[in-house]
Amino acid sequence: MTHPPVGSHCILELRGCASDRLNDEAFIREALTQASKEGMSTLLKLESQKFDPQGVTAFAILAESHISIHTWPELQYAAVDVFTCGETAKPRLACEYMAKAFSAASYTLKEVPRGMCVSPYKPSEVVSSGEAGVCSN
Amino acid sequence: MTHPPVGSHCILELRGCASDRLNDEAFIREALTQASKEGMSTLLKLESQKFDPQGVTAFAILAESHISIHTWPELQYAAVDVFTCGETAKPRLACEYMAKAFSAASYTLKEVPRGMCVSPYKPSEVVSSGEAGVCSN
Repeated sequence: MTHPPVGSHCILELRGCASDRLNDEAFIREALTQASKEGMSTLLKLESQKFDPQGVTAFAILAESHISIHTWPELQYAAVDVFTCGETAKPRLACEYMAKAFSAASYTLKEVPRGMCVSPYKPSEVVSSGEAGVCSN
Repeated sequence: MTHPPVGSHCILELRGCASDRLNDEAFIREALTQASKEGMSTLLKLESQKFDPQGVTAFAILAESHISIHTWPELQYAAVDVFTCGETAKPRLACEYMAKAFSAASYTLKEVPRGMCVSPYKPSEVVSSGEAGVCSN
């Protein structure tokens, strides 16, 4: 039996960004707050960490899962991921907002479906174990 | 010019887990704390959210990036990701610990290199823009 994924995990690479924004913790917190709105999701908690000499990590817990960002101002690069579950949220819209917010010159977005094999567990249906696993139920 | 990735992002699917552990916020916080140690990384901040009627999200900010988990006890499923940068951290060891901690009957682990195209930005080297981008520098 095929079970729909529980969510979508967008892996977003932002390149050629505005370095000053990538090092601005307040700007990054505001960007995540706005991205959660653009992605039609609900922000529950927001946490961040500034690194020395540069770089910021920020993380938003959503009702629908999360948004995270890690920045490398010296490389004009940010690693973002947006994971949402449910039918309402639009993670790609959140990603597009993030690309614009940091003035990314280019970006790549890879969408990974999550929870593809999680119809109620039956031992006889386990066809894989470990890293090489492929689900077939 | 090829630039080494800035980090490794492990997307971990845990199936057939112990449902009670997936709904135990304190257990999950302790698991993330221990996973950060097993992965030879440094835990900076830990945040979590319990959902009603069930399910937990937890997020660890590491000096090396992050670990997150979202749980669906009713499906015996957890979506985990472990993102680390630098040479020291061992994200796969953190993943293996998480699989054991939740008694996963099976798991799949997908490792995504992050920041493959982030040698100092030169507009002439941008060969892609948008979702279909492939980096060639």
